[in-house]
This record gives sequence, C-alpha cells and structure tokens, in this order.
Amino acid sequence: MNKPEPQSVFAPQVTTGPLIGSRKVYASGCAHPDLRVPFREVLPHPSANEPPVTIYDPSGPYTDPDAAIDIERGLRRTREEWVKARGDVEEIEGRAVKPEDNGNISADKLTPPFPKQPRVLRAKAGATVTQLEYARRGVITPEMEFVAIRENMRREALGVRDGESFGAAIPDFVTPEFVRSEIARGRAIIPANINHAELEPMIIGRNFLVKINANIGNSAVTSSMAEEVDKLVWSIRHGADTVMDLSTGRNIHNIRDWIVRNSPVPIGTVPLYQALEKVGGVAEDLTWEIYRDTLIEQAEQGVDYFTVHAGVRLPFIHLTAKRVTGIVSRGGSIMAKWCLSHHKESFLYTHFKDICEIMRAYDVSFSLGDGLRPGSIADANDAAQFAELETLGELTKIAWAHGVQTMIEGPGHVPMHKIKENMDKQLEVCGEAPFYTLGPLTTDIAPGYDHITSAIGAAMIGWFGTAMLCYVTPKEHLGLPDRDDVKVGVITYKLAAHAADLAKGHPYARLRDDALSRARFEFRWEDQFNLGLDPDTARAYHDETLPKDAHKTAHFCSMCGPKFCSMKITQDVRDYAAKKEEAERGMEEMSAKFKEVGSEIYVHPTGEKREPID
Amino acid sequence: MNKPEPQSVFAPQVTTGPLIGSRKVYASGCAHPDLRVPFREVLPHPSANEPPVTIYDPSGPYTDPDAAIDIERGLRRTREEWVKARGDVEEIEGRAVKPEDNGNISADKLTPPFPKQPRVLRAKAGATVTQLEYARRGVITPEMEFVAIRENMRREALGVRDGESFGAAIPDFVTPEFVRSEIARGRAIIPANINHAELEPMIIGRNFLVKINANIGNSAVTSSMAEEVDKLVWSIRHGADTVMDLSTGRNIHNIRDWIVRNSPVPIGTVPLYQALEKVGGVAEDLTWEIYRDTLIEQAEQGVDYFTVHAGVRLPFIHLTAKRVTGIVSRGGSIMAKWCLSHHKESFLYTHFKDICEIMRAYDVSFSLGDGLRPGSIADANDAAQFAELETLGELTKIAWAHGVQTMIEGPGHVPMHKIKENMDKQLEVCGEAPFYTLGPLTTDIAPGYDHITSAIGAAMIGWFGTAMLCYVTPKEHLGLPDRDDVKVGVITYKLAAHAADLAKGHPYARLRDDALSRARFEFRWEDQFNLGLDPDTARAYHDETLPKDAHKTAHFCSMCGPKFCSMKITQDVRDYAAKKEEAERGMEEMSAKFKEVGSEIYVHPTGEKREPID
Repeated sequence: MNKPEPQSVFAPQVTTGPLIGSRKVYASGCAHPDLRVPFREVLPHPSANEPPVTIYDPSGPYTDPDAAIDIERGLRRTREEWVKARGDVEEIEGRAVKPEDNGNISADKLTPPFPKQPRVLRAKAGATVTQLEYARRGVITPEMEFVAIRENMRREALGVRDGESFGAAIPDFVTPEFVRSEIARGRAIIPANINHAELEPMIIGRNFLVKINANIGNSAVTSSMAEEVDKLVWSIRHGADTVMDLSTGRNIHNIRDWIVRNSPVPIGTVPLYQALEKVGGVAEDLTWEIYRDTLIEQAEQGVDYFTVHAGVRLPFIHLTAKRVTGIVSRGGSIMAKWCLSHHKESFLYTHFKDICEIMRAYDVSFSLGDGLRPGSIADANDAAQFAELETLGELTKIAWAHGVQTMIEGPGHVPMHKIKENMDKQLEVCGEAPFYTLGPLTTDIAPGYDHITSAIGAAMIGWFGTAMLCYVTPKEHLGLPDRDDVKVGVITYKLAAHAADLAKGHPYARLRDDALSRARFEFRWEDQFNLGLDPDTARAYHDETLPKDAHKTAHFCSMCGPKFCSMKITQDVRDYAAKKEEAERGMEEMSAKFKEVGSEIYVHPTGEKREPID
Repeated sequence: MNKPEPQSVFAPQVTTGPLIGSRKVYASGCAHPDLRVPFREVLPHPSANEPPVTIYDPSGPYTDPDAAIDIERGLRRTREEWVKARGDVEEIEGRAVKPEDNGNISADKLTPPFPKQPRVLRAKAGATVTQLEYARRGVITPEMEFVAIRENMRREALGVRDGESFGAAIPDFVTPEFVRSEIARGRAIIPANINHAELEPMIIGRNFLVKINANIGNSAVTSSMAEEVDKLVWSIRHGADTVMDLSTGRNIHNIRDWIVRNSPVPIGTVPLYQALEKVGGVAEDLTWEIYRDTLIEQAEQGVDYFTVHAGVRLPFIHLTAKRVTGIVSRGGSIMAKWCLSHHKESFLYTHFKDICEIMRAYDVSFSLGDGLRPGSIADANDAAQFAELETLGELTKIAWAHGVQTMIEGPGHVPMHKIKENMDKQLEVCGEAPFYTLGPLTTDIAPGYDHITSAIGAAMIGWFGTAMLCYVTPKEHLGLPDRDDVKVGVITYKLAAHAADLAKGHPYARLRDDALSRARFEFRWEDQFNLGLDPDTARAYHDETLPKDAHKTAHFCSMCGPKFCSMKITQDVRDYAAKKEEAERGMEEMSAKFKEVGSEIYVHPTGEKREPID
C-alpha cells in the first residue's frame, strides 16, 4: 500500500498498490478482444499445490502497480471509444457551471474544479443510447461482454451447485448473450452513463453475483473533497461495486466531478439533494425546472444512476402520519413536504416521462427511491410502504417503455419474518427489475452496530433475490462515516452478499470458501489471511496473540495452544483412518480369497455398534 | 463505572456500577416473596412523557451501586437456603484438590485458591435433585418462579404479537406453572448446580427469550485468572446470559473456582479439556476414571452445565475422513483420537448412564456436544454431523430417564439455505430439548469478521427455534478474545437474539425497539443511546462528529445537517397533516349538514389521484 504524495495542494491522497497477497490480472474479450477485464488473484503457498483463486475486483487501476494514478487527470477514459463507435451520440457544449451548483460558495472556500473537463456526449436527437435499447435490438455491447467475463471469474470448471435460489435463473456460465437477454427483459442493468468513460462496467441483477453499494458524500457539517475521493478509492479497494455520492453541503458540483473522473465503478446520486441546495434548503421552493436542470447537470458529468423518489405521491402521505418514525428518507420527506405545502401531486411523478427522456439521452439508470421506507421495526411493510412500491412498479413499466434501465430501492427497517414479503412483492409488482435494498435492519435497538443488524437482513434479502445491497456503517443514525467506518461497512456487506451467493447456489461462490477452509485446516495462515475479505485485519488479530513470524507456519493457534489443537488431532485421525482403510483393504482381499474357496472367516470390523451403553 | 482497587495482590479488578442511563431495580416473588429478581430500567427524559423501559439484566450485583462487591469473598450465596430447604441434599467433605487439577504447576506459578471454600452439597443417596425431577413431581421451585418473573420483564400490558414462530408456543405471559411444565417435558432447562448458590436463575428454552452464551477461559499460551474473572463480569455487564469457562491451560481448577464464586450466571465447562490436561495432553491416555473424577471435581465446584461429546462414536469417525475440515471441535477430535487409537467405542457413550448418575446428584445440566459439527461451509449438514445428532437424540432420552436436564449443541459453519434443516432435525430427533448453537457462520471467507458471518446464522436459527446462541468474537479462528472482543461478541449476539425474538413475535420484544425509535424520531439523543445495547459506543460515535453537549438536544444530526433533516421535515408534515385533518373534519361536518338538507357540494379532497402522468 502506498500513499503517494499529492500532486498539488488540492489533490487528495488515495491508497494505491495491490492488496497484500493478491496480484492484479486481466482477461481479454472474444467479440471485443481489446477488453481488459480486471480481477485479482490470490496465489496459495507453493507447498500447498493449490490453484490460484480468482477474486472479483472492483478496485480499478488503483490496485494495479503498473497503472499510473494521477487524481488531477482522472482515470483513463477507455469507454469513450466504445460509446462513440456506436455512432449515436454527439459532442455538445454542455451546460455551464452556475454558482448555485456549488451552493453559491465564496471563491476562497470553493473546491477547485476538476482540472481536465472532458467533452460532454449526448444522444443524437431522437436516439436512445441505453444498454436496454441495444439489448432489445440484439446488440451485444462491449459493456455486456465485459460484465459476462467479469461474472465468470476466469473459472473453467463448474463449481458446486448447492443452494435454494427461490426462482432465480442463475446460469452455470454467463455468456454475453445471457447478459443481453437479462438486460433486454429488464431483469438486470449495467449502470453506465455515456459520459462516464472511466467506468469498468458491472451488472446488477438477480441472476448475477450479489453486489454492494457504499455511500459517501459530505454534509453541511463536515468533510471535504479530498476525504470523499479518498473514501471512494478506499471503499472500492475493499469491494464496493458502486458508490453513491450523497453530498448535501456546498461544493457539491465540484466534489462530484472529482469523484466521477476518478471512479472505475458506477456513481449514483440523489439529484433532489442538490436541487434542494439550489433553493436554499427550502423544500417548498423546489420546482420542476430546477430539478430538470440538475438532472442535466449531473447526467453531463457522468453520474450512472439517479435515485428518484417519484413514488412519494400526495395520496400516500397521510398513510405515514401514525407511524412511529414517519418518513425517514431524506428524498421522501422533501417531496412529502413539497406535495403538502402546494397540495399538489409530486412533480417527480407528474414529470416522470420528462425525466425518462433526459436519462435515456445519457444512459443514466433509474434507482427508483423508496421515499416511504420504514424507519423502524414498527413501520415495516405498512400501507404507505407498499402503496409506494406498487407505484414504483407502475413507473418501472414507463421507464422501460422509454428504454431506460431501472432498479428499485427497498427498505430500511424490517424484522426477519417480514423480509421475504418485501422481496416477493417487489418481484411481482416491478416485473423482476433489480431490487436494491438498504439493509434491512432487523432490530432498532443497536445504534453503533447497525452494520450488523442490517447485515442480517441484507444477507437474507440477498438470498431471496435482491441484486444489490446498500451498505450500512457502524455510524448509521449517529454520524457521518469516516474512512474506518467505510471499510467496516464494505467488508460487512461483502460477507453478507457472499453469504447470499452461497445460499442461492451460485456455481462458483463456494470455491473461495473451500480454498480458505483448506488453508485453515492445513495451517497455512498467510493463505487464510489472503483469501479472506480483509487480510490486514485477520493478520493483525492473529499477531496480537502470536506475533512471531514462526507462528505463521505453526500448526496451532493461540486458542488451543500447541498440544491441544483440534485440527492437528484431526490430521492424525485422518492419517490413522487412511492406514486403517489400507489394512482393511488387505483384509478384504484376503477375505475375498477365502470366499473363493467357500470359507468366510473375516468380518468387516467397521460400521457396526461395538459396545452397548452400560 | 468504577474500577475498584484490588483487595489484595491476587484479586482481579472488575467493572462495577450501573450502565449509564440505567438503574437497577428488583421484583419480588409471589409464592416465594423473598425473591429479588433483577432488572435494569431506563428512564426516558421527563419531557418525553414516556414510561420507563425494563430491560432483562444478567449483570448481577456488579451493576447495583448498593451491592458490596468483594471478589475474594464471592457473591452472596442466596440459593443455598432454597436448595437446603428442599431437604434432599447433604453436606459432604468433598473431593480434595489434587496437584494435577491445576496441571501440576509449581507453587510459585500457582493461582491462589479461592479464599473462602463453601461446603459441598450433594444429593442424599438415591435422590435426584434436578429441576427436571421437581417439575415432574409438580413442584414449583424458587428457581422456577424466579425465571418466570424474569422473563416477564415487569410488563403489565401485552405487547404486539406479530411474528412467525415456526410452531413454538410462546405464552402471552410466563407463569411459574408454565415454566414448570416446559421443564417437565424437557423443552426448557434451568442450569443451576446446587453448589452454585451465587446464581440468579435463568431459563433456556424455545418458548422463552433467546439467550446468549459468552466463552472465556485461558489457554496454555495466554491469559490469567484476573483477566478471566474480569471477562466474566464484563461479558455479563453487556448481556451474556451464561458463560462457558473453556480454560485449557494450567491453574484450571483454581481459575474456575474464582469464576464460579463470582458468577451470577450459569457457568458451563467442557470437563474433557481438564481431563486431558491431567494426562499431559495425550488423548490416548484418557480413561473413564480420570474423566469421572473430573466430573465430580467440577460438579462439586458448582459448574452448571457440562458439554459432553458423547455422540462422537467410533462408527461415525470415518464419515469425517473426506471432509474439507475434518473434525474441528476440540472435544470431538480428542474423543475421535481416543476411539481410533484404542479401536473402542467412546467411554463417554459407553458410560453415559454413569455420567447421568453423577450429574443428577448435583443438578448439572447436559449440553450434549456436537463434536462432529462442520468446520466449513463444505462440510455442513453431512452424514457425520447428522449421525451424531441422531445419537444425541438417543442420549437425550437416556438423560431424561435419569432426571437430568439436557440441551443440545449445534453447528458451526452452515450456509443460509441449510440452517433450517438443522433446526427441524434437532427438534425432531431430540424431542424439542433446547438447541444451543455456535453461530452458525454463513460463510468461511471473513476471518476477523466472524462475529458477523455468524450473527447472520445465529439470528436465523434463533428465529427458527434455537434457545441459546453461543457467541463468536472477531478473533474467531485467529486468536483468543480480549476484553474488547468479548464485548463486541456479546453485543453482536444480543442483537441477533433480539432480532430472533422480534421475528418469533415474542409479545414484548418490540417494546424496546419502539421506545428507542420514538426517542430517535424525537431527537432525544440521550434516550436513544441509553435504550440501545451499547450506550457508550453510540454516544462516542455521535460525539465524533458533534461533540458539543448542545448537540445532544439538537434536532438534527451530522449526516444531514441542520437545514436538511428528514425527521424534522416529517414532524412538519405531521403537524400539517393534523391541521389538514382538522380542517377536513370541519368540512365533513359541514358536508354532513348539507346532506341533511339534501345537498352534496363538498367532495372529500384526499385519497384520489390528482394529476395524470404527463
């Protein structure tokens, strides 16, 4: 891990270099041979005679020692060529940045604009430039082939298919054609704004690996651009598949520019937050025009998906009045306030088709927000929540009709026995559009530990069919996550997503578990650390009790001590059993010979009850 | 929190004093008026006009500011009177401590014996002095009334009954007679050795609150008596319902004495660990006589439950040979090695009735160990595991026939889709004897985070019917947990157990969630912290971004900032809705009046679609 010197006073420091024990590898494409699909590979100790383990890797060039990282220049814009090659976009002047985009901040406090502004692309008049549109037309884009290769993780043999997928259709092997067909029927999305040329495409859908999202972003109270870019790189280093920039403070436009230009993963936002900043935080003063202008602003920057709370409708708001925790979604409460103060239907709902028109010109995907999600166990699965979900189903069909890729956001706080109902209802009313849930938290009583209360719900709903899990950090309900919280949140959600993949019977999820378990059983401590989700933490914990290097090869651990190790004993048992089996084979051969001459004097000694209970 | 000065050079320091925001309260009995059943109570801020919240409290006198704590004298021996009053026990000389009990340690390294040795009690010849025996005879013991009061948590009104209990029979209100009947049919146990007079009784059963166990104990490599007593007090302070002393190093007898004499919660052990120490760690040298002597030694000290791996039978051992991680249970691997080296059936199995005879003379409960539990996802639910489980079912019936209280230990490592099968099979083959599971871990790939991989499985299996969850700390697979790990493990398992209670529809589980959520919604920060499982951590996280005291009453938090708080907006919405409702009521009254005169000019303005999507 290297912390490079900043290139200028403004440029943030980020962590680069490979994870310990891993190396970056790439696979190339078939229809698109230039593709460089990234993975990381863990090589077990040579003595183990084990194959390398390929790991899905959203960390981008930051973990490639051969990549030159320059935050002020941004990442390589590989996708520009793919997008332009389709011939359906044009370079435009683009919207000029306005003072209100950065909250009218004074010049001395302004975060500097990103130095190198790329030209803005937009669909040619009348064109729909979304992956959904191409998929429907039967086109396999480079993005589709990229994610197909990515999902297969360089696997050759089929792994174990042992699971319960509740009706999912996970294939043995992901082909580009399978990706295309899943996108065409709306069951998966590749969030990939044509202006986000730095992107390494990824797919979100029930029949692919379960993904996770990390939220970052400043607020009016705390944090800066440098911190947010660092959190972006830090979160993908540990496995975040997408990152949402939920900034609500000033400098919001410029911070986002730095984030998008340096992000290899899809970036999501809630445009309403910035729109509200533009009207001084007064929800009643929001207008469709301001919102529309914000959508265009962010679409031109390259944001890959927008959370749009268009399901918070005027007739549903009274359904929340008797709740224990009312409306806890920020977007939901802003729109509720707007609707009530004007006594009008939400402009997000009335202008939904206009929103679709904008988004399809840049291939921004919808993340239809659950503004009425429950904020407590008491409010789970209530009339308000489900009324909104039904509306989101209605809007999904409209988005699809406009060729816009769509996923649906889900709760929130839900006790375990009500989780499956959420998933089943979402599948039903939203036509299997990907579900993207926050947790859900399975109890309200553990502030400080809500990454765990929610990991329980996340693993379960991921198993039931949710395509992407939005992380929750230990600071949930209490404060803004710092770097350490981001890492804990990401690792926690990676393990929840993986537990879901295992339970769904994903054909190669278990390869990594098995490789790690063999390392554990064989006391290959370094391999155990390196195959885990967080090698640094595992190693540090081990070092606390047995710090000496020699102990990394010791055939015992601090829990049981040298004489008393169950794994060591088991190996003895296994050796014994092998010898015994050999001896028995000898006896069986002898027995067979006796049988040949009509005699039967040997009785097989295993498998029978030897002694009665006295 | 006070850290008292040690009374002598030997006495450990422990944390005393109430949790911040809580006060200790007691309830008295009805049939046994002298009972003092402990709870803690959180008083919300007076401005909130909220009732106090009663919380189940296993922390013992350590959190009572009026209790005098003296580790060298041990806790008050309240139960001695209850036990003696039954007239079926006698004081005996007791087994003399032998040098091998402490691993033949030299005098200078010997942990001093506990200063004040109580007289040993044992059943009179021929008597069975177990709670199971009394329950069958129709006797409601003080222990039974104690746990009935404890389970009800001073609740008067019935809470919300909203859940799926998978066939459990959780009553609206726990009566002493219900406790008796559950114990009589073997569906619950009160682990309560007649020699553990310091105990505050608790119950383990599917129809009661889900409990958690914390493991402590030294090993040959690390830790001391003072650390272990501190961990005991620390773990119950945060909510551990029972504590297992899994010590395997030297001084094992004396350390256990200090633990039991200072423990208000049941103490469990694995007697095989000490027996192995007595034969120098050589499994083959174990004998029934040494094991038997160890059972008596520990029963006389007051250990409340013994893990006995009597289901690891000779004919099952070969079933583990092809596993990825063989036999990972220490007890299981010791017995497997013994069986194979002697090629004989396990003495735990052949002498099972003898073990029952010993245990019923002290009311030590069985925790029938799962020595063949899976140590990896690959090995879950395999033939070895289930063969052993069936044997445990067979042994349960023998234990019951001898009047011995019994629970069953469960896995281990199990992917989510195989968890329910474990529970269902256990209920079926073990006649609903309480299930006590370690996790299970739902993936192998997160060393350093196995408190979380296992909390997912623990919450689920608790929901499905497991009565007690054995915690897993972040150090699992890596090292021995320290004080901080113990706390994280306990809080994590408390939240998992609570999530299970909620999902089962326990009639008052949700009271605390709702109280906390109301506090959260109303920005009563201190109440939110104090009602949570870990007030100190929640407060510290909040202080990181908003440290000033004024912010504890601020109607916003650092995530959204002062202008942008969804909860604040929701309150505005609610006020608006209330006004609107009032206005509408006025309109309805007017409308009704018009109707009276045959006119209809007012149309109710809510509930209808106002504007079409354009």
